[in-house]
Amino acid sequence: MKLWEKGIPVNEAIEKFTVGKDRELDLYLAPYDILGSMAHVTMLESVGLIEKEELPVLLEALKKLYRQAADGNFKIENGVEDVHSQVEFLLTKELGDLGKKIHSGRSRNDQVLIDLKLFTRDAIKGIVLSVEQVIETLLAKSEENKDVLMPGYTHLQVAMPSSFGLWFGAYAESLADDLELLLSAFKIVNQNPLGSAAGYGSSFPLNRQMTTDLLGFSNLNYNVVYAQMGRGKMEKIVSFALANIAGTLSKLAFDVCLFNSQNFNFVSLPPEFTTGSSIMPHKKNPDVFELIRGKCNKIQGVPNQITSVVNNLPSGYFRDLQEVKELFLPLFSELDNCLSVAGLALGKIVVNKNILSEEKYNYLFSVDEVNRLVVEGIPFREAYKQVSEKIGKGEFEPVKEVVHTHEGSIGNLCLDKISAKKTQVIEAYRFERMEKAINKLLS
Amino acid sequence: MKLWEKGIPVNEAIEKFTVGKDRELDLYLAPYDILGSMAHVTMLESVGLIEKEELPVLLEALKKLYRQAADGNFKIENGVEDVHSQVEFLLTKELGDLGKKIHSGRSRNDQVLIDLKLFTRDAIKGIVLSVEQVIETLLAKSEENKDVLMPGYTHLQVAMPSSFGLWFGAYAESLADDLELLLSAFKIVNQNPLGSAAGYGSSFPLNRQMTTDLLGFSNLNYNVVYAQMGRGKMEKIVSFALANIAGTLSKLAFDVCLFNSQNFNFVSLPPEFTTGSSIMPHKKNPDVFELIRGKCNKIQGVPNQITSVVNNLPSGYFRDLQEVKELFLPLFSELDNCLSVAGLALGKIVVNKNILSEEKYNYLFSVDEVNRLVVEGIPFREAYKQVSEKIGKGEFEPVKEVVHTHEGSIGNLCLDKISAKKTQVIEAYRFERMEKAINKLLS
Amino acid sequence: MKLWEKGIPVNEAIEKFTVGKDRELDLYLAPYDILGSMAHVTMLESVGLIEKEELPVLLEALKKLYRQAADGNFKIENGVEDVHSQVEFLLTKELGDLGKKIHSGRSRNDQVLIDLKLFTRDAIKGIVLSVEQVIETLLAKSEENKDVLMPGYTHLQVAMPSSFGLWFGAYAESLADDLELLLSAFKIVNQNPLGSAAGYGSSFPLNRQMTTDLLGFSNLNYNVVYAQMGRGKMEKIVSFALANIAGTLSKLAFDVCLFNSQNFNFVSLPPEFTTGSSIMPHKKNPDVFELIRGKCNKIQGVPNQITSVVNNLPSGYFRDLQEVKELFLPLFSELDNCLSVAGLALGKIVVNKNILSEEKYNYLFSVDEVNRLVVEGIPFREAYKQVSEKIGKGEFEPVKEVVHTHEGSIGNLCLDKISAKKTQVIEAYRFERMEKAINKLLS
Amino acid sequence: MKLWEKGIPVNEAIEKFTVGKDRELDLYLAPYDILGSMAHVTMLESVGLIEKEELPVLLEALKKLYRQAADGNFKIENGVEDVHSQVEFLLTKELGDLGKKIHSGRSRNDQVLIDLKLFTRDAIKGIVLSVEQVIETLLAKSEENKDVLMPGYTHLQVAMPSSFGLWFGAYAESLADDLELLLSAFKIVNQNPLGSAAGYGSSFPLNRQMTTDLLGFSNLNYNVVYAQMGRGKMEKIVSFALANIAGTLSKLAFDVCLFNSQNFNFVSLPPEFTTGSSIMPHKKNPDVFELIRGKCNKIQGVPNQITSVVNNLPSGYFRDLQEVKELFLPLFSELDNCLSVAGLALGKIVVNKNILSEEKYNYLFSVDEVNRLVVEGIPFREAYKQVSEKIGKGEFEPVKEVVHTHEGSIGNLCLDKISAKKTQVIEAYRFERMEKAINKLLS
Repeated sequence: MKLWEKGIPVNEAIEKFTVGKDRELDLYLAPYDILGSMAHVTMLESVGLIEKEELPVLLEALKKLYRQAADGNFKIENGVEDVHSQVEFLLTKELGDLGKKIHSGRSRNDQVLIDLKLFTRDAIKGIVLSVEQVIETLLAKSEENKDVLMPGYTHLQVAMPSSFGLWFGAYAESLADDLELLLSAFKIVNQNPLGSAAGYGSSFPLNRQMTTDLLGFSNLNYNVVYAQMGRGKMEKIVSFALANIAGTLSKLAFDVCLFNSQNFNFVSLPPEFTTGSSIMPHKKNPDVFELIRGKCNKIQGVPNQITSVVNNLPSGYFRDLQEVKELFLPLFSELDNCLSVAGLALGKIVVNKNILSEEKYNYLFSVDEVNRLVVEGIPFREAYKQVSEKIGKGEFEPVKEVVHTHEGSIGNLCLDKISAKKTQVIEAYRFERMEKAINKLLS
Repeated sequence: MKLWEKGIPVNEAIEKFTVGKDRELDLYLAPYDILGSMAHVTMLESVGLIEKEELPVLLEALKKLYRQAADGNFKIENGVEDVHSQVEFLLTKELGDLGKKIHSGRSRNDQVLIDLKLFTRDAIKGIVLSVEQVIETLLAKSEENKDVLMPGYTHLQVAMPSSFGLWFGAYAESLADDLELLLSAFKIVNQNPLGSAAGYGSSFPLNRQMTTDLLGFSNLNYNVVYAQMGRGKMEKIVSFALANIAGTLSKLAFDVCLFNSQNFNFVSLPPEFTTGSSIMPHKKNPDVFELIRGKCNKIQGVPNQITSVVNNLPSGYFRDLQEVKELFLPLFSELDNCLSVAGLALGKIVVNKNILSEEKYNYLFSVDEVNRLVVEGIPFREAYKQVSEKIGKGEFEPVKEVVHTHEGSIGNLCLDKISAKKTQVIEAYRFERMEKAINKLLS
Repeated sequence: MKLWEKGIPVNEAIEKFTVGKDRELDLYLAPYDILGSMAHVTMLESVGLIEKEELPVLLEALKKLYRQAADGNFKIENGVEDVHSQVEFLLTKELGDLGKKIHSGRSRNDQVLIDLKLFTRDAIKGIVLSVEQVIETLLAKSEENKDVLMPGYTHLQVAMPSSFGLWFGAYAESLADDLELLLSAFKIVNQNPLGSAAGYGSSFPLNRQMTTDLLGFSNLNYNVVYAQMGRGKMEKIVSFALANIAGTLSKLAFDVCLFNSQNFNFVSLPPEFTTGSSIMPHKKNPDVFELIRGKCNKIQGVPNQITSVVNNLPSGYFRDLQEVKELFLPLFSELDNCLSVAGLALGKIVVNKNILSEEKYNYLFSVDEVNRLVVEGIPFREAYKQVSEKIGKGEFEPVKEVVHTHEGSIGNLCLDKISAKKTQVIEAYRFERMEKAINKLLS
Repeated sequence: MKLWEKGIPVNEAIEKFTVGKDRELDLYLAPYDILGSMAHVTMLESVGLIEKEELPVLLEALKKLYRQAADGNFKIENGVEDVHSQVEFLLTKELGDLGKKIHSGRSRNDQVLIDLKLFTRDAIKGIVLSVEQVIETLLAKSEENKDVLMPGYTHLQVAMPSSFGLWFGAYAESLADDLELLLSAFKIVNQNPLGSAAGYGSSFPLNRQMTTDLLGFSNLNYNVVYAQMGRGKMEKIVSFALANIAGTLSKLAFDVCLFNSQNFNFVSLPPEFTTGSSIMPHKKNPDVFELIRGKCNKIQGVPNQITSVVNNLPSGYFRDLQEVKELFLPLFSELDNCLSVAGLALGKIVVNKNILSEEKYNYLFSVDEVNRLVVEGIPFREAYKQVSEKIGKGEFEPVKEVVHTHEGSIGNLCLDKISAKKTQVIEAYRFERMEKAINKLLS
């Protein structure tokens, strides 16, 4: 069944090629497609395009389908092109001609746009909650290990004293900033494109503010040409915000893999979090963090790949956009897996508490020695020279005590401030507004 | 002169290779480096690391240098490694040992971080103002041409009626969304890293909140390891937000180049905005928009290139980050050029007012015909079939009248709403806060 | 069953996360894994690590598994980590301890490397044959339409006369060059890594030249550290060579989509190769070519994504490489689908034979007019000025006759030369050498 | 002066924007532009478009300009658009109308194509010679350190014994493979596009085989549409081949930076190859290798950026391609700098000869122990279990002797074979053919 069937069958190889993975990918969108239709028909009734008594019939049937989809029981049948066709097909089977009316004033371009927006809003919420959990684990580990010193490196050269409190806390604050970027992506998503039809609007007297409110969007994509142009662009922006989180996670994983090497021996993982070698009996490999790194690096390549697909196309819809779905829809669960496994493993990570006793770390304390001389009144460059000469002659004796007191330093981690940053940004998403609207629509 | 000179001269080829384009690139940063030092010494005095009477002497000398730098008269001398060294060198030349004190509690990592942040804040402001001008030009052109119809395409096939009002307005709204993304990048930038030293803090009792306030930052990068980790990450995020604007501009330019072809003949450029061919005497080429497209597509590749440099490095500073400067610092003026030339050319673009009189555009009106039947009570799918059959038999006669009334459609462009979106997002930058602080510091 | 099982069960979430899609992806590799083992055990016997009478037993069992795998009947059971473990597991089930001997002098790193190389050699051959078919279709269409003129564009402005002979032929020659690049990728692949074990060689007296010959490789990856380092690198290089073909195909598809627009009307597709719209009854959309373009643009992003995963890792194996399999293995069938659908559709494409009769194409002939004047003795720049002035005054009258005779021009397409280029590069692959070896091994 | 001047001055801002960095970038191309013109006029004379007596006059004047350009004394004057215009301008100044004749049967598209091809051929040769030098340095260091053992890692976990002989040799072989990829890029470049004019050929009876021979190309880009289409594509392919070399160099640099850390202490650099810190008096930073890594990673992003610019453009020239010059032309000297500095620094690198005496490296020898048991007749999996248990109980005593004999292993580095690979691939470039032709043209 094709919505545009004209009596000439499409070449079979072409049919298979053009449908591609759409049936599979559209399952991500099914419940959202139905929500969009519920809002749309409610609005159609308000402007007289659906009879008063027809609306409850349609809404009831749609709600039934929604429950199926939400429970994972929705299927796109063979021969049916996509989720939109399947919904209309099922409705028409149940309600006759009335079912066909849900497409009035719409286009499939319109439908897939609203589906993608509703799906993405929800999926972003899932990521935000997972990031929050990782932040909390990191803050807890930071607090727990605030007194455990470790070397700080620049150029991978032993540089200055650091601590596990600092190290864990750094990634917590990094993720809080990542939520800020994701928030702007969310705001760009959370605008209603419904009513843009094929990208040029409709001659029906649609009420787009009404569907905006029904679906809990914070605003409209006003211009209908822009609404359609937002497809591809939205995915590019959101995937970059996800890639940015992936970048933070990848860096954290790199550190863990390095620090877990026998040459550092700063952290270790419990045996049930490591894997072995088929030929080297002594190996305990940090595969988990290598895979987090690998997966997150793959994710970092996605915005560029989406750009490859959507760039240098003139305005107006093109089927190329179908390919973006395959790149975009699975991203969320992939990143979410990385986040939850990272959270799990970070919670179990074991920290070496005696790292700095090794002699090779003595030079870590040279700057603090320079500073001590400065406080005694010697100009900085002069103090630097004195300590430098001591080191050159092998006469430098470190005082292995760290008294750093300023904001964000070893002795003053400001974990409460970092936590507050996180809380503040999450509140700005105002997830409750969208949830309230959807619950009302479904009630 | 090297700040870390130890008496062994560096191999000359190595010296040349390692300094690279730093002297040239650091000129972007010079005024900001001096501002950072002004805030730093003010704070040093407050915590007793500089004598009360020394502060005004230092500030006066720094202000003098700032004026030089702001006027473009600051130079990094041969043999001096970077802007930080040059400033310290000049100060010491003038003030003796006092000049050396400005480095207390800092590292060059710290300095370049604060320089980059202050530079980027300002540069983002420049971009925002240029984008605003392009939006205003687009809104004006949209209003001016709101009644000029043009074909709307999907799959580059003649699809439904559109208008120049819609087309210009679409890009205005797109750029307003782009400012939303740039805003989150700005918020991530606008946090104070000063005091993080080499990335592990300092044993001096620095007051980081004080420098935050003096420089008009909205917050601190608290964790000092994160502050340093923000380098590379900040550039990646900001360059993506710029790339996103570039993406919008590139698409607009693609449309213009297409619409300017004899095969469309929708728009034309005045002769002084076109270029000719060395062998084809009849050519009037839209090189301006091709170059905007090309430059903007180049810009879209930058976030990925920055990621290539900074990805898969463990935490802690690496010299690799120097390469990011070359990718990042010139981005702003390149994009700004594209924006201002685009604004200029869009203002002069001439629109063809009689496009739809050509017969090939008749089918544009088929959907409106379907809708008319629906309003008369025929179910959508049925109406679609009827019109489809008329077209098949060559009996379709279009009524070339467009009555679209809903929000964002041809007859209801909502330009005031789009303008309001733009204004609202620009206000959220709160540029006045940072300017007030900097003006106070310099007064 | 894990080859490295030590009695401590791995955390279940970690287990699931680390295995990932390996079981599914390893099915691509199964037959090649078995071939590699056949060569390996043959060699082991020759150096005395397997008894003379054991070899035929092992080979027979492996051949049986090979036939299963080749027929698609090979499965990786739940609880078994990967294809290598599954093969060893099945052998041991059948042959007892003898089955375990196939792993002597190897590592799984070694096995996956040889699997990937053998798979890729074969998959490249498949692509080469598909490209050859598309080239032949293009050459046939070029010959068929060598007299059909069309406008040639620069800057999308009507420029000079071109022909469908030129247009089809251009892509044929482009693909021939693409085979040249793929050839070098093939040469880099077609070197034997077997014997590198975990990347540091083996204390067994392996005979690597022997397995090189048995498997029909043209050379060895000698250095064992490099052999392992080649993983990721090989995929990056091969994927770029595939991306390059995809780039050619994408450009061809872009042309078709443009030329199929009503605004060009140069080509059309038979109805069974187009799709319709759910709301616009008149649409015949070239979705096939849009999807070819979209898929090919996606493919063009893969080398960069592989680079993201493998870059900035020190030497030595990392589990990150597992992620490359997911990016790399499905590439071949995706590109192959695009090639075969493109070939099919190009064969059916219908060309408009009267394009140049439209007045807007008159200026195409201005350069030929300039040249005519030059042949009459007027210097080029002078002739250019004269024609330019005629055009300006609207007095230019084109002579719509094209007499281009030089190599590669409208009147002299050199299709035989292009065909010869293609044949020459395909012969250089010497596929018969690898096939002969594999057939012998399996006989 | 503009070749296409029509009397209407171009808007100044537009002029500045469209010329961009062309004047500066075209200097890379100046000598090649002149060579192309020498071949072109020689051919024009042979087909009667230039008088017999005019040819030597033109050639003499062009040779004079060539010498200026080769000596770096060629300048593109203000107000002159590009190198092609400047050459024609100078010729005309000297020879009057005769100078204008060099443009007969050409277009600037044609000229810039031939310039880019001739430049790139030469520039590739430069890279090949530099890579060869690095390979030779690596082979010498490998031979010199063939007996110095080091740990081999997988997952950055101590794994099996390796050696500096292996480590240096691995990168030599990697670079030899990289030359293979570059060779195919060279072959694609080394085909003559001259005569394609604006991309649609010429009505003049050009002899393209003649210019092919005169310029020492190995073949023609026959199809003139393809010849033009090759622009952008050639740069993409060549830049990828360069990026591939950069990838090898980046990995090598990563290893050096890691091995130079106090936590590995495998290699060190002489003081004149390191840099210091402005606050940490003990630092000796490997900035050289960090910058090689950073620059090479930047280079690795270029193919993707070029793709961004040229992708999704229909066939035919667009001004967008100008932007590719800026990305492409400076690539060669950037990579060449990295190669020569890497060669210099690798020659001076100092290797630690007593690494394996540290206890943490004992487990390196566990596999060899397993193998020993296998040779004694114990099945591999059984032997693995025994050694594994010994390690678990802390009873494993390593025999720190490495007897690896197979091809490419610690005891049999096959440096001669790697060197032969390199020699063979370099010979296949046949640089002497192109040089002979150019020398003849200039004689």
